[in-house]
Amino acid sequence: MDYTPRPDDIRFLLDAVLGAPARLAALPPFAEVDADLQAQVLAQAATFVGEVVAPLNRGGDETGCRLEGGAVQTPPGFAAAYQAFVDGGWPGLSAAPEDGGQGLPAVLEAVLYEWLAAANHGFTMAPGLLHGAYECLRHHASDDLKARYLGRIATGEWLATMCLTESHAGSDLGLVRTRAVPQADGSLRVSGTKIFISGGEHDLTPNIVHLVLCRLPDAPPGPKGLSLALVPKVMDYGRRNAVHCERIEEKMGLHGSPTCVMRFDDATGWLVGEPGRGLAAMFVMMNAARLHVALQGIGLLDAAWQKANAYAQERRQMVAPGADRAAGPSPIALHPAVARILDVQRAWIDGGRLIAYRTALQLDVARHAPDARARERAQQWCSYVTPVLKAACTQQGFDGASACLQVFGGHGYVREWGIEQTVRDARVTMIYEGTNEIQAIDLLVRKVLPDAGAGFAAALLVLRDELDASRDADADVQRRLAQLRYLTTNIAMAAHARPALPYELADDYLRLVMVTLLAWAWARIEQAPGAGEPQARAAAAFRRWVLPEFDMRAAIVKKACEPQP
Amino acid sequence: MDYTPRPDDIRFLLDAVLGAPARLAALPPFAEVDADLQAQVLAQAATFVGEVVAPLNRGGDETGCRLEGGAVQTPPGFAAAYQAFVDGGWPGLSAAPEDGGQGLPAVLEAVLYEWLAAANHGFTMAPGLLHGAYECLRHHASDDLKARYLGRIATGEWLATMCLTESHAGSDLGLVRTRAVPQADGSLRVSGTKIFISGGEHDLTPNIVHLVLCRLPDAPPGPKGLSLALVPKVMDYGRRNAVHCERIEEKMGLHGSPTCVMRFDDATGWLVGEPGRGLAAMFVMMNAARLHVALQGIGLLDAAWQKANAYAQERRQMVAPGADRAAGPSPIALHPAVARILDVQRAWIDGGRLIAYRTALQLDVARHAPDARARERAQQWCSYVTPVLKAACTQQGFDGASACLQVFGGHGYVREWGIEQTVRDARVTMIYEGTNEIQAIDLLVRKVLPDAGAGFAAALLVLRDELDASRDADADVQRRLAQLRYLTTNIAMAAHARPALPYELADDYLRLVMVTLLAWAWARIEQAPGAGEPQARAAAAFRRWVLPEFDMRAAIVKKACEPQP
Repeated sequence: MDYTPRPDDIRFLLDAVLGAPARLAALPPFAEVDADLQAQVLAQAATFVGEVVAPLNRGGDETGCRLEGGAVQTPPGFAAAYQAFVDGGWPGLSAAPEDGGQGLPAVLEAVLYEWLAAANHGFTMAPGLLHGAYECLRHHASDDLKARYLGRIATGEWLATMCLTESHAGSDLGLVRTRAVPQADGSLRVSGTKIFISGGEHDLTPNIVHLVLCRLPDAPPGPKGLSLALVPKVMDYGRRNAVHCERIEEKMGLHGSPTCVMRFDDATGWLVGEPGRGLAAMFVMMNAARLHVALQGIGLLDAAWQKANAYAQERRQMVAPGADRAAGPSPIALHPAVARILDVQRAWIDGGRLIAYRTALQLDVARHAPDARARERAQQWCSYVTPVLKAACTQQGFDGASACLQVFGGHGYVREWGIEQTVRDARVTMIYEGTNEIQAIDLLVRKVLPDAGAGFAAALLVLRDELDASRDADADVQRRLAQLRYLTTNIAMAAHARPALPYELADDYLRLVMVTLLAWAWARIEQAPGAGEPQARAAAAFRRWVLPEFDMRAAIVKKACEPQP
Repeated sequence: MDYTPRPDDIRFLLDAVLGAPARLAALPPFAEVDADLQAQVLAQAATFVGEVVAPLNRGGDETGCRLEGGAVQTPPGFAAAYQAFVDGGWPGLSAAPEDGGQGLPAVLEAVLYEWLAAANHGFTMAPGLLHGAYECLRHHASDDLKARYLGRIATGEWLATMCLTESHAGSDLGLVRTRAVPQADGSLRVSGTKIFISGGEHDLTPNIVHLVLCRLPDAPPGPKGLSLALVPKVMDYGRRNAVHCERIEEKMGLHGSPTCVMRFDDATGWLVGEPGRGLAAMFVMMNAARLHVALQGIGLLDAAWQKANAYAQERRQMVAPGADRAAGPSPIALHPAVARILDVQRAWIDGGRLIAYRTALQLDVARHAPDARARERAQQWCSYVTPVLKAACTQQGFDGASACLQVFGGHGYVREWGIEQTVRDARVTMIYEGTNEIQAIDLLVRKVLPDAGAGFAAALLVLRDELDASRDADADVQRRLAQLRYLTTNIAMAAHARPALPYELADDYLRLVMVTLLAWAWARIEQAPGAGEPQARAAAAFRRWVLPEFDMRAAIVKKACEPQP
């Protein structure tokens, strides 16, 4: 039961609900990217993902990656599939044409990566890291480095890594110790050990480009002393650099992706960006990377749903309430407990997709809109909404995949149906690219509260304007938007006396925002041209089972903000 | 980091909060089982579990079980540990002295099994199945079968299985097809294939006693045509019976326990109980078995908490809000997001324990109270509360273990710290012994609604009587008990017109009951003699983060019961 991408579902959301074709056509580089071309790209992507990538998922989990003599062997078929991915031009889908890319919108790339993760999360990790490295080098590397590396990365000829974490420095990157010593020729000598490096070593490409967070001599302690170095596995003249994979981790899942401990022994590298601005150089790519992780959560949830739904239509156990006894045991999809699990996941998948695609469109606007104010507004939307999507969609990716496993009963706990792999694979998305707890703090403490919620409220205004208060569902969303604003003010005021409070409420606040965004999404989806029974059903499931979380979280926040006795 | 049982924590709950010693002393067989003896048993159990069983947990996961030539090899050390378990008299802790047991209270056995599961869930599966088989044979087997099997099972000399599921018959056992044909000598010939048989084959004991759900010739279709047969692996005269392990499953976790496909080829067996009363014979043991599964959830959650708490005290990342910047990065336990995860799990562990131990005490009362009304009331309590505990504690066992994994960041996703094994192992408890969805239906549809909630309300009265309405927390529990009763009536009335409604609301209803029981538990724990800061902290976490679910579920139920437009 491999994952099957369904382009029609996506096009309904992009075209009918979001009006993506018109929005993209307004951006100069995409003037020619009409609805037909977008449909064609999605159709081809669906074919590639379904036929080439999805069938390798189970083998990737079972065989996993092996380290022998310093070389990492990826699972059978991965190298050929990756070569086909490069040959198809997929790595450079949204990269600039001058770098060898296709110059297509980020929103199409977002859909591609959602499908890839759904079909084969382990495989997807390899190309998934290219895009951040590309953006980072494009914005911060010297012309010389760009000439040597940018094109190769844009096209996927060489893969890249992000070497951030050290064993004692995870969420707190300010503790990084890896050292970089400048040489007379302008290069650096980089020494240190990095852990949790996805694709640190593999057999997919002849070279691997590491972006390494490190510390120059005499750099101040903490995050302001961090710089970024580019360290290739293979030097320009073919010599192997002093970068070694010491170990690959045994993990809960994601076995198709080698998670490496990388040792740099006076390895040769070059500075990317300014000294002491390493974190800033990395953060350039954060919104896009986090959005992709959110889409991994949604993709894996859709993969779990596809499996569970197919099983629930076939498997017959007991007569469902209201079903004809004479017909014998009913498909379990008709049992209310199973129907609820499936419908709630659909509400998250398509609601989450709508918000994620809207955000990906804003990435396109932020990059390409002719009007500076429009670019800035789009950037703000991404800045606020991306951590919300990252945390909430990955949480649901895991919880919902586990709920889908439950549909299989005991059959879900054994390997046979593949659903337990989805659960194991999904778990990591809640951790990497900043844990979900860090996302919540990023949203509330770093972004919303500094101006007491004014900027965030302004960013959400656009949603209110898209609603029609004469419809009940729309009016309900408007009420919740207003309540969210009120709760934000509550927290901002209470935080004066109790500075730890926002940290305590960050998770609740993020969930409040996500449920509100989902409410907006379902109000929009339900009334879009072409919406039918499946949409009405998912919208009803959302209102019945998901939306009540809003009031619960609101009560938690309100209570916590009351003056302490 | 092996699990360490903490008898003092348990004795606080048993002695100071529940007054277990006095309650047990009132039961004739336990007149001599005073607090000192109970303490001694728990201390010895803690030593055995901590020193013998816990160290084998990781190896059990990594090596797993192997099937070769029809024989199953359990992980290294399991056979010796099991022999030590038998030698220590642990299998028969609560079995009757006349069967070779120790005749101790079920509540002590409950604690033992909680610890065993926490220490090594895979190992625990083997002896865990004895108790149901013992109860079943004790109540339903012929004197001849009892003479041949009961003592061996009571003492753990031979292990036992429950052969229920077939590939097409899981939650719906009425579909079972395995056939049993009576022979002239009074035996049966049993033929069929059973799946998901824990411990169907292994190297721990010289014989394995299978209790097999089957169908006699001319039995009616459905559950009323099911009978129960005892089928030994080895016959009395040493001949191997025609029972074979065809395959062991590859599972998400629980690798220390072989999950077998068992084929019966005209195997020799004997009827247990009446023809057509097979399900009834099996259900005798259901409350005890489900309570043990609930305690597995609690135990695994405590194991996850122990690991995460130890890590959070040691690991330092970033300065926590309010902490001294000059002291450098804080232990992550001081970060509010981490503290919340840990405190919420403590609230579930000790609150869940209190309800589970109270229920285990009621099992003792139901078995041994001289007064028939007291036995009946205790039986009713168990009947209502057991499915609630099974579903809610196993859900939290998994969700909470996953939350504890999150405390480790990326380190949680790799094998190193063992926390990901706990998450994988915990997942199965939501499925077996009746899925959690089945538990919810059992509670609401089969038990609460048939008398419109009157019996359940009566069973809960005893809680109200233990509360002191002059305390705020106690008054709050009383209000919620009243609200629960009101919601029950609501559902009962609405169900007249909409018979599917209780099935739709069963999960919400079960959660409402569990949160109410937890509220009672924390009201009691907080004011028990000896309660201190840790209890106050967990109680506060419960009220702040767990209790709000009550209002959310209540709103869902109320809304669903409104007349449909």
